[in-house]
Amino acid sequence: MKTLTKLGLAAAIIAVPSLGLAQEAAEAVADTTPPNEEIGFIFTTFMFLIAGFLVFWMAAGFSMLEAGLVRSKNVTMQLTKNISLFSLAAIFYYLIGYNLMYPGDGWMVDGMLGAFGPAVLEAVGLAGSEPDLTYASVGSDFFFQLMFCATTASIVSGTLAERIKLWPFLIFVVILTALIYPIQASWKWGGGFLDGMGFLDFAGSTVVHSVGGWAALAGALILGPRIGKYTKEGRTVPIPGSNLALATLGTFILWLGWFGFNGGSQLYMDTAGNVADISRIFSNTNTAAAGGAIAALILTQVLYKKPDLTMVLNGALAGLVSITAEPLTPTLGAATLIGAVGGVIVVFAVPFLDKLKIDDVVGAIPVHLFAGIWGTIAVVFTNGDASIGTQLYSILVVGIFTFVVSGVVWFILKATVGIRVGEEEEINGLDMAELGMEAYPEFSKG
Amino acid sequence: MKTLTKLGLAAAIIAVPSLGLAQEAAEAVADTTPPNEEIGFIFTTFMFLIAGFLVFWMAAGFSMLEAGLVRSKNVTMQLTKNISLFSLAAIFYYLIGYNLMYPGDGWMVDGMLGAFGPAVLEAVGLAGSEPDLTYASVGSDFFFQLMFCATTASIVSGTLAERIKLWPFLIFVVILTALIYPIQASWKWGGGFLDGMGFLDFAGSTVVHSVGGWAALAGALILGPRIGKYTKEGRTVPIPGSNLALATLGTFILWLGWFGFNGGSQLYMDTAGNVADISRIFSNTNTAAAGGAIAALILTQVLYKKPDLTMVLNGALAGLVSITAEPLTPTLGAATLIGAVGGVIVVFAVPFLDKLKIDDVVGAIPVHLFAGIWGTIAVVFTNGDASIGTQLYSILVVGIFTFVVSGVVWFILKATVGIRVGEEEEINGLDMAELGMEAYPEFSKG
Amino acid sequence: MKTLTKLGLAAAIIAVPSLGLAQEAAEAVADTTPPNEEIGFIFTTFMFLIAGFLVFWMAAGFSMLEAGLVRSKNVTMQLTKNISLFSLAAIFYYLIGYNLMYPGDGWMVDGMLGAFGPAVLEAVGLAGSEPDLTYASVGSDFFFQLMFCATTASIVSGTLAERIKLWPFLIFVVILTALIYPIQASWKWGGGFLDGMGFLDFAGSTVVHSVGGWAALAGALILGPRIGKYTKEGRTVPIPGSNLALATLGTFILWLGWFGFNGGSQLYMDTAGNVADISRIFSNTNTAAAGGAIAALILTQVLYKKPDLTMVLNGALAGLVSITAEPLTPTLGAATLIGAVGGVIVVFAVPFLDKLKIDDVVGAIPVHLFAGIWGTIAVVFTNGDASIGTQLYSILVVGIFTFVVSGVVWFILKATVGIRVGEEEEINGLDMAELGMEAYPEFSKG
Repeated sequence: MKTLTKLGLAAAIIAVPSLGLAQEAAEAVADTTPPNEEIGFIFTTFMFLIAGFLVFWMAAGFSMLEAGLVRSKNVTMQLTKNISLFSLAAIFYYLIGYNLMYPGDGWMVDGMLGAFGPAVLEAVGLAGSEPDLTYASVGSDFFFQLMFCATTASIVSGTLAERIKLWPFLIFVVILTALIYPIQASWKWGGGFLDGMGFLDFAGSTVVHSVGGWAALAGALILGPRIGKYTKEGRTVPIPGSNLALATLGTFILWLGWFGFNGGSQLYMDTAGNVADISRIFSNTNTAAAGGAIAALILTQVLYKKPDLTMVLNGALAGLVSITAEPLTPTLGAATLIGAVGGVIVVFAVPFLDKLKIDDVVGAIPVHLFAGIWGTIAVVFTNGDASIGTQLYSILVVGIFTFVVSGVVWFILKATVGIRVGEEEEINGLDMAELGMEAYPEFSKG
Repeated sequence: MKTLTKLGLAAAIIAVPSLGLAQEAAEAVADTTPPNEEIGFIFTTFMFLIAGFLVFWMAAGFSMLEAGLVRSKNVTMQLTKNISLFSLAAIFYYLIGYNLMYPGDGWMVDGMLGAFGPAVLEAVGLAGSEPDLTYASVGSDFFFQLMFCATTASIVSGTLAERIKLWPFLIFVVILTALIYPIQASWKWGGGFLDGMGFLDFAGSTVVHSVGGWAALAGALILGPRIGKYTKEGRTVPIPGSNLALATLGTFILWLGWFGFNGGSQLYMDTAGNVADISRIFSNTNTAAAGGAIAALILTQVLYKKPDLTMVLNGALAGLVSITAEPLTPTLGAATLIGAVGGVIVVFAVPFLDKLKIDDVVGAIPVHLFAGIWGTIAVVFTNGDASIGTQLYSILVVGIFTFVVSGVVWFILKATVGIRVGEEEEINGLDMAELGMEAYPEFSKG
Repeated sequence: MKTLTKLGLAAAIIAVPSLGLAQEAAEAVADTTPPNEEIGFIFTTFMFLIAGFLVFWMAAGFSMLEAGLVRSKNVTMQLTKNISLFSLAAIFYYLIGYNLMYPGDGWMVDGMLGAFGPAVLEAVGLAGSEPDLTYASVGSDFFFQLMFCATTASIVSGTLAERIKLWPFLIFVVILTALIYPIQASWKWGGGFLDGMGFLDFAGSTVVHSVGGWAALAGALILGPRIGKYTKEGRTVPIPGSNLALATLGTFILWLGWFGFNGGSQLYMDTAGNVADISRIFSNTNTAAAGGAIAALILTQVLYKKPDLTMVLNGALAGLVSITAEPLTPTLGAATLIGAVGGVIVVFAVPFLDKLKIDDVVGAIPVHLFAGIWGTIAVVFTNGDASIGTQLYSILVVGIFTFVVSGVVWFILKATVGIRVGEEEEINGLDMAELGMEAYPEFSKG
C-alpha cells in the first residue's frame, strides 16, 4: 500500500487503482475525511518516524543475527559489514536512490526509470511555501523509505558471510542501494508500470525481501561455497554459528522492527479506519511470525527428532516475510497459516540449497527469497483485488532484473578487484586476515 | 485501570466503579470529553500499538535475562523455550484466551468464566458497521493484551530452567495462556467478580506477575531442584550464570518494555488528563526500578560486603513489579520507596527460597510473586479507593486458583509424559541432550 | 531548542530570543497556532514519552558498548556501574537536579543558580487546577529531561573503566547528576545567562556530551592510566575489548536512542511545522551517524590499511554527537559532512590522547568532548542566528566550570576514600576483586 509518496495528493490520485480493498473499505468510514487536515498530517508523519525507527532497528537485528550465525573468527567482519552497509545505504539513498524510486512526474523513462538527484527535505518549519498537508512530511517519508532500502542490503550480507572481501561487498551495496533497489521499487511503489498493472505488494515481500534474496543468490553462485562446507563426496558439513544468544536477540529485534515495516506501510494514520488497519497489520504480523516459528519447531521435531533453534528463528523470520506482501486483509487465522507455510518452506529449503551446493550462511535465501515469493503469491488468497497472473509476472520481472543486474555486477567485481579472500585468510578467519581484530579475543576456541 | 476493553463504551460503564481516583480526577479537566471522538480513537489506538510493541520487546528481555543466568550448556534450550512460548501464547490467546478474558456480556458463568471462541478483529477500514470510536480499535487492544498473556508465560520459564523437558513445558504454556491466565484475568480486567468487589490492580502485579510466579512455584515444587544445587548437608551451592552482559541487557529491555506495560494500562490517551497520567506512570515506573536497583545494591554491599549484580538486576525488576499494581497515584518519592521495598524483598527472598530448597534459577519467584504481592498491597498506601481486605482477598483467590490448577497440570504432566530430563542429560546440559546444538560451540568451558 | 520547559508559555516567551531560525520559519505556517490546544498538548506530551524512552534505551547502549570494550575480567563491574549510575541519576535528578535546571522564575542567583527542591508532577488527571495546555505535561518533561542527565553520567563511566573503584565513582555520579549537570544546563536550557546571550545548543553537544567528556577527562587525569597501557619507553599497548558484538549492539542502541535525543529536543509537536522539523532532525541525525561511520571506515583503511571496527563505531557516535548541537537547520548533505568531520576527529583524537598518556578506555573523550566541541562550533555554518563568539564563549564557560568542579570532586575523593583499586585487584580484574562475580565464568581466557 506504499505508493508514490513524494508528491502527495497528485501522486495519490495516480496510485488509486492499486490501493485495493483497504482503501475502499476505509471509505466506508466517515468518508475517510480526516477530522482535520493538519492533525492528520501530524499523525501520519509521527507514525512514519516511529515506524521508521523500528525499521532502523532491524539493522541491529541483522547484525546480531549474522554475528551469531557465523563462526567467531568472522564476527568482527560481519559486524563491520553491517554497520557500513547501513551507513552507505543512508548516504546513497539520499544522493541517488530516493528520487529514482519516487520520481513523481519526473520519470526519465515513463514508469520504468525515475529521476536522478539528491533528496531534498522541506524547509525548516515548512516555511516559504503553502505546504500540502494531505499526507506526511517529506522528511518522515524519506526517513521511513530509506530504512527499506537498507534492509534490502542487510539481507545480502548474511548469505555471503565468511568468505567475501569487505570492499567489493561494499561496492555492491552502493550499486544495490543507489540503483538496483530504487529502480525496481519505483515500478511498484513509485507508481511505475507494475503498479499500473495492479501488482500488490503491501510492504515488500517482493520489492524488498525477494530483491535482497535474488542479489544474495547471484552473489552466492558467483562467490562459491565456503571451504569445507561441501565434501567431495557431496556431503554437507554443518558449520554451527558461534553465538545463538545473539542470533535469537537478532530475531527478536527483527520481529519488533517488522511492526514498523508492515504497519508503517499503511502510509496513512489520519483516520479511524487507517489506524484500525494498522492495528490489524500489527496483529497479523505478530501471529504470522508465531506461526512460522511453531511450524519450524514442530517440523524439525518430526523430521529430525530434535527441534532446531536456528530453524525456529528462521521460521519466525520466514513467517514475517510471508505476511509482508499482504498484512492487512487476512484474518488472524489466515495470517497464522500464511506464516506457518513460510516456516515450512524454510525447513525444506535450507537442505535443498545445500543439495545444490549453494552456501547461504544464515539462510537468507530461504527466508527472504522463497518465503518472499510465497507471500507475494498468498496475496491472492485474502485480497480480492489481486490477480495471480500479475503477481507471478511481477515476481518474475523483479526477479530477472535483480538477478541479472546483480550477477553482472558480482561478475565484474570478481573479474576486476576480486570478491573472495584467499584460502588461507578464509581458514584463519576474515577478522584477523582483513581487519586484524578479533571479536572475542579472550575466549579460547574449542 | 485495565477493564473490559472489548465492548467499548458499554463495558466502560460497567467498569466505572473500579476506576477510582484517576478517573474521578480526570473528570476535573474539561469534562474529560475528548476534543474530538475520532481523534481520541486514533490517539488511544496508536498508544496501544506503541505500548504493545514495548511489551512485546519484553519477550526478548526475558530471553536474554534467562540466557544470561543459566549455564552455557543450557542456553540454546532456554532460548528455544522463550521464542516458542511467546509464539504459542500468540496463537492460543488468539484462539481461546482473548474472549475468555474479555467476554463482554457473554459470560458462561457470570463474572467467573468467560466465553470460548477465537478473537475477531474489525473489518478492514472499519467497514460495514457504524464503528464505536469512544475507545480504541479491537486490533490494537488484542495486540496489547496478548503481550501481557505472553509475559505471564515468560515468567515461568526462568524458574524451571536447566532441568525441565521442552515439550511438557510448552504444553503447560498452552494451558497457561489459553486458560489459566485469561480466566483469572477476566475476574479483574474482564469486569468479573474481583473487579466488582473493587480490587485494584492497574497493570498486573497480581494478574500478571504473581500468576506467573505462582505457576512457577508450583512447577518448581513438583520438578525439584537441579542436581547439585543443594548438598546433603543442606548447603546451597551457587551456580553462576554464564553471561551477565546478556542478563543486564535483558534487564534493560524489560525496564524499557515496562513503560508500555504500565503506561498503556491507562487504557485511554484521548484527553490531556489521560496523557498526563501516562506521563506520571512513565516517571513512577522508572523511579521504582531505580529504587529497587539501588536498594539491592546497598543491601548486598552491607550484608555481603560486595555488591551483587544479579541482585541489582533483580532488584530493578522487583521495583518494576512492585509499582505495577498502582503506577499512577504515588508521588515520585512514594514510587521510589515502593520500588526500593521490592529490591529489599528480593535480597532476602532469594536465600529464603534456597533455605526451603526451592530452586528458582533466575529468581523469578522473588521478583514476580513476592514483589507482586507487595505491590498489590502497596496500592492502599496511595490510592484511597483501595481496600486492604479486598486486595488481600484477591491476592489469595488468584493465588489459590493459579497454584492449584498449575499444580494439577504439572502433576498430570509429570505422571504421564514426565517433565524432567534424565540425570545424565541434566549433567551434560539440555542443549546437547535435547537439542543437539550448543549456544557457544567454539568457546571452551573453564 | 530546549528551553525553560517547566513553566510553559511564560517560559517560552522569555526564551524566544534563542529560538532562532526554526521558530521564525515555523511561524510562516498557519501562524503556528496548533489546530487545537488540548490536541497539541497530547501530541507534544506523547512525543516526549516516546523520545524519552528512546533516550532511556541509550543507557542500555552505553552498558553494552562499554561491556564490549573492556576486558572480560572487568565486565561485571562495568555493567554494575552502568545500571547503578542510571538509577542514581533517576533518583537525584528527581530530588535535586530537575528544579536546579528549570527554576522558572525561582532562581537563587539570577540566570546562574536555580532552585533546590524535589520535582513535583501534576496531580492525577490534571485535577485541582486550571491546567496550562500550551506545552506538555510536567511528567513527560521530567521523564525526557531526566534521560539527558543520565546520559551525561553514562559518558563518564566508559573512560574510567577497568581501574576505578565502584563507590567513589557512584559518589561522583551523584554530584554530577544532582549538581554539576543541572547547574550548567540551567544556563542554557533553564533560560539562564548563556541562553540570554544567544548560545545555541539544540540537543546538547555542549550541555550533555562535552560535559560528560570534561568530567571524564578530569577523572582520567587524576585517576591515571591502566597498568600496562603505556610502556616506560612511551609506547601505547593496545588493549582490545572482549566482545565486539556487544560493542556494536551498543552503538546501534545509541544510534536508535539518538532519534529521541535530538528529535524530542524540538520540544513541540503540536503543528505541522513542528512535526516536519522533527522529521528533518531524524533524517539529519541518521545521516550524520552514517557520515561519521564511513569517514572512520575509509580513514582507517587509508591510514592503517585495515578498517578498524571500533573506530567505525566511535565514528558513528561522533557523527551523532556532532549533529546534536544543530540537527534541524542543515541539509542532508551538510549533516552528512558535519557527521563525517566527527568521524575524522575520532580517528585522529584517539592516538592523540594516547600520546598524552590519557587513558580513555572506550574513546568517550574523542567522541563526546572533541566531537561535542566541533558540533557546537558547526552550528554557525547552517544557522544564521548563531554567533561564533557566543558559541566559543559558551563552550569555554561550560568546559571550565565542569572541568574544575569535576577535578575538585575527583581530587577530594582521591584524597579521602581513594578512587583507584589496588594494583593486584586491577591486574586480576575488578570483577573478582570488588564484586566476586565474573561476567563469563565458564569461558576460559585465552
